[in-house]
Amino acid sequence: MNGTVIYGRNAVIEALESGVREFNKIIISNGTRSDAKIEKIKELAKEKGVIFQFVTKEKLNAIVSEGKHQGVAALIAPIKYLELDDFISKNKNKNSSIVILDGVEDSHNVGAIIRSCVCAGIDGIILPSRRGVLINSTVEKTSAGAINHIDIIKTNSLVNTIQRLKENDYWVIAADHHAEQNYFDIDYTDMNFVLVMGAEHAGISKSLLKLSDFKVKIPMLTNFNSLNVSNAAAIILFESAAQKYKKCVK
Amino acid sequence: MNGTVIYGRNAVIEALESGVREFNKIIISNGTRSDAKIEKIKELAKEKGVIFQFVTKEKLNAIVSEGKHQGVAALIAPIKYLELDDFISKNKNKNSSIVILDGVEDSHNVGAIIRSCVCAGIDGIILPSRRGVLINSTVEKTSAGAINHIDIIKTNSLVNTIQRLKENDYWVIAADHHAEQNYFDIDYTDMNFVLVMGAEHAGISKSLLKLSDFKVKIPMLTNFNSLNVSNAAAIILFESAAQKYKKCVK
Repeated sequence: MNGTVIYGRNAVIEALESGVREFNKIIISNGTRSDAKIEKIKELAKEKGVIFQFVTKEKLNAIVSEGKHQGVAALIAPIKYLELDDFISKNKNKNSSIVILDGVEDSHNVGAIIRSCVCAGIDGIILPSRRGVLINSTVEKTSAGAINHIDIIKTNSLVNTIQRLKENDYWVIAADHHAEQNYFDIDYTDMNFVLVMGAEHAGISKSLLKLSDFKVKIPMLTNFNSLNVSNAAAIILFESAAQKYKKCVK
Repeated sequence: MNGTVIYGRNAVIEALESGVREFNKIIISNGTRSDAKIEKIKELAKEKGVIFQFVTKEKLNAIVSEGKHQGVAALIAPIKYLELDDFISKNKNKNSSIVILDGVEDSHNVGAIIRSCVCAGIDGIILPSRRGVLINSTVEKTSAGAINHIDIIKTNSLVNTIQRLKENDYWVIAADHHAEQNYFDIDYTDMNFVLVMGAEHAGISKSLLKLSDFKVKIPMLTNFNSLNVSNAAAIILFESAAQKYKKCVK
């Protein structure tokens, strides 16, 4: 199996629990102190018939070349990307929302954004094939398993993707710190939307900005105007979540 | 000088511009392609009389042991921590707000939270001396220079610190996912507050939870309840910022 390595107790538990990933094997380093999470991994693995392998700490370090593995890793099938048209038909009878990352380069940021997306009820995430990062072990780890709870789409052309979404009644919201409108002045509750977040330094490509229906900024209370992209995404996504939440409990 | 290494073009520019850090020298690796940012660093350094040193890429790699230096680093004086009582008197004639990180362990998270704090107009940040991370090179880098625009306090006892803040009319807000109240149901605009964020996995210590005046949660739209701590902080801090912003523009 041409696999992906995931590592860390929570990431392995999440992947086992989600049931959407095919496991090759779970690898635990000799001398890993057992705790409630390790026991849970063992139990879930037995239940699902996944093989265990005990290796030396040095071997596990070699398998997990970067990041903290906390004594446990797993080899699993690579993530399955969804086709855009399948995503659109799957979500056509509800208000649907999706996030585009236009060249975000830091795997930690991508993982954290996926986590926020799942918590905020976003249906999917779109990554360009040739700019920024795709799903890798660090994204898996920093997403804390969220990756298994959201549809992931990759595309060769964000312009074509956005046009296709627009044809299917998605409104395009671009996060742009030059915008005039504030992110909290939009009603997110009654439309399909795609939120476009730009790369860490370059922001959103001009070609995508042109296609947007709304441009929104996050107003700062000081002259220091430099939020981390995953934090900016969280702020906007949870404004949309809060609006939806308030509407439901009314 | 017992110094700190900062690295990355933006971090060096920010530190030079802020004027609050004493520079030992700026180190640029031979063959670093000049661009607008490198030119700006050279210009600011001349203006402020800071020495330049050109070194091989290998030497710079050795100085910056982790992280991407983008060809430039600087040796600067360590951050000056402020005393709590000095912070309190400095801010006593305004509505003041401060964030406590109760054992946050990931330097990237601490850096990103400091960035959000500065953007959201928070006056200070409190770190415990013996749990979690203090200011290091990674925090400096991921804060994108925000560290130079906020007061940083370290403390041996968060319990004593919170009690002292309470005596000085600060309300204590704890972010706790077991809370009943939602973060957007609090009026942040008319009080001094201290927001307490817990460690990545363990959350907030019980002793601190007991001292809190409000416990707030971020309601999720799905069963996946696991936000990155820097994203959770950003969501709450920018709710407070949005409330203040709306009040001002009214």
